[in-house]
Amino acid sequence: MTATVDVALGSRSYSIQIGPGLLNSAGALLETLARGVVPVVTDENVARLHLPALLSSLRMHKLDALPIVLPPGEQTKSFASLEGLCREMIRVGVERSGLVIAFGGGVIGDLAGLAAGLVKRGIGYAQIPTTLLSQVDSSVGGKTAIDLPEGKNLIGLFHQPRTVIADTDLLTSLPRRELLAGYAEVAKYGALGDLAFFCWLEGNAVRALNGDQIALERMIAHSCRMKAEIVARDETEAGERALLNLGHTFAHALEAATGYSGALLHGEAVAIGMVLAFQLSEQLGLSPADDTMRLIRHLKNVGLPTTIREISGFQPDPDSIFVHMKHDKKAAGQSLKFVLARGIGGAFVSADVPEASVRTLLAG
Amino acid sequence: MTATVDVALGSRSYSIQIGPGLLNSAGALLETLARGVVPVVTDENVARLHLPALLSSLRMHKLDALPIVLPPGEQTKSFASLEGLCREMIRVGVERSGLVIAFGGGVIGDLAGLAAGLVKRGIGYAQIPTTLLSQVDSSVGGKTAIDLPEGKNLIGLFHQPRTVIADTDLLTSLPRRELLAGYAEVAKYGALGDLAFFCWLEGNAVRALNGDQIALERMIAHSCRMKAEIVARDETEAGERALLNLGHTFAHALEAATGYSGALLHGEAVAIGMVLAFQLSEQLGLSPADDTMRLIRHLKNVGLPTTIREISGFQPDPDSIFVHMKHDKKAAGQSLKFVLARGIGGAFVSADVPEASVRTLLAG
Repeated sequence: MTATVDVALGSRSYSIQIGPGLLNSAGALLETLARGVVPVVTDENVARLHLPALLSSLRMHKLDALPIVLPPGEQTKSFASLEGLCREMIRVGVERSGLVIAFGGGVIGDLAGLAAGLVKRGIGYAQIPTTLLSQVDSSVGGKTAIDLPEGKNLIGLFHQPRTVIADTDLLTSLPRRELLAGYAEVAKYGALGDLAFFCWLEGNAVRALNGDQIALERMIAHSCRMKAEIVARDETEAGERALLNLGHTFAHALEAATGYSGALLHGEAVAIGMVLAFQLSEQLGLSPADDTMRLIRHLKNVGLPTTIREISGFQPDPDSIFVHMKHDKKAAGQSLKFVLARGIGGAFVSADVPEASVRTLLAG
Repeated sequence: MTATVDVALGSRSYSIQIGPGLLNSAGALLETLARGVVPVVTDENVARLHLPALLSSLRMHKLDALPIVLPPGEQTKSFASLEGLCREMIRVGVERSGLVIAFGGGVIGDLAGLAAGLVKRGIGYAQIPTTLLSQVDSSVGGKTAIDLPEGKNLIGLFHQPRTVIADTDLLTSLPRRELLAGYAEVAKYGALGDLAFFCWLEGNAVRALNGDQIALERMIAHSCRMKAEIVARDETEAGERALLNLGHTFAHALEAATGYSGALLHGEAVAIGMVLAFQLSEQLGLSPADDTMRLIRHLKNVGLPTTIREISGFQPDPDSIFVHMKHDKKAAGQSLKFVLARGIGGAFVSADVPEASVRTLLAG
């Protein structure tokens, strides 16, 4: 009942364990990687629900686990938190050959991974993701980051974890809306490069999201495998890895335009962004209208938003959304880079999308 | 009249250009690496003396150079400066495929290299070192860092520069004391692994330090070549690269004990630390007394300090120096790691030096 996905990156290779109840095996899985003090970085919500179980497993295997509990939320991905966390790691005496555990969602994984990458010029870390979003996306592939007032994820590193442990049982404690938002990244893997997986999701996603452990594990494992294969071929996003940004240029702009408020979760923005990317591809004569409809139907069926109009309390202003897109860090020079698609499963990177097409789409 | 040293690191390989007047060729040397806005990070002292020449060379080659001038001194290697510099780079619009120039001594190189490594998860940078210390040591090998209140260089990255330009003419504007301090790292290369180079230095160092350009260039090029070879074999200091820390465990402790004040420059601490490392090796029966004397004689002849007593206004307290040594980040677990030597040119890493021997030496 446990799946293993290998991420092949030479001397930085690691494996992802996926399955129910794995938190109780964390001590056994990490004992050979750890040495000395093991900082466990987490947030208040995760700590309340799951920290005792993790600590008990680690301590059963004689690991000197030391929790560092941070406030939840995106504002924790700041320079101030990074400095505080680095200093705390030094103060508790983490060793250069030691291990840090990132125990939480994307915010904790991004921040703790970055701190681990910087303390003593790089300490190993393990990801124990607690949300669907982080299990299928942010905890795999080594992207770490904090935000600046100038934009999200502008400061960071590629620092691969030593291992990833995805306990699917943890997802039962997630609010439904957050679970669905994480699912948008799962649907993305099908939409960008795997029509067969997309078909499987059409038949099984609802069951997985309602708690069918076998479907859930298979869904997460397949997502991780797709990401692992792409990352193995293009670790630092010189090319193919950019496909993982399907829908993200629109998504980042929508998140910025709504002030990163609770009105729009990242995954919800990705769902809307993917639909916009398919509509743009359709408008440019690259993708059939049927595939756009099929994507919209599936996302709706699961319970995800598919249009900007569904963002509650948001008065869309096409011009301001467009300005945010131009600030996106993936912008190369003066031209906007887009991930477009030739139908479901056929994503590709295009650097020469006419601005007018994008503006027309946003105005519609 | 220009020497080139190659640093062989696969896809991260680069070359170091060494010679007089190279600042005027900076534009030509960097034009193929740069793209878009090129932040030139420097400090007020270097800016006053040399920035106009650099900017003129860059602009002659149509590079969009944009100076960012920081206060001089070690206190600039802080989290606050790092945050400010990263935000400034983002604000001026540096591109992910762009180039940052670090133009100054070790402080500027360490800080700007780290900022370049973090902005947009890694931008290329060029080192244009302006001190002897940074030309032969910190600008080669990709170590970047800032300090914490808990200790120096505790936060950093391995981020290799795209190229290094060492203009030997710039050294004529250095205060004599700073030039000599930098020379300690040159003598270190001979002492740790190259007896023939040490012999050459005994005959030529004074001439080089007095401005003989041919001797100076040869001295710097040989130092860079030795460091490049070691770094190529052990980029992230898993083994051999630690030899470059000859004298540094003592040096870091002395710098900490004197409060990183002007009473002791890093290179001066390294000179004293090397002598202590040779005395420790001698005391352990590993190195002949003649070699310790020969090292002391050479350092004195050049004008460097060789004993703790020479640090002006410092009342040495062996216990407090020892405590600082145990806090050194290279400490592995509970045992202190030392670079010892079997005579001049015969350095090696030892992890089992008895504490008593070190205490005896410091008390003497």
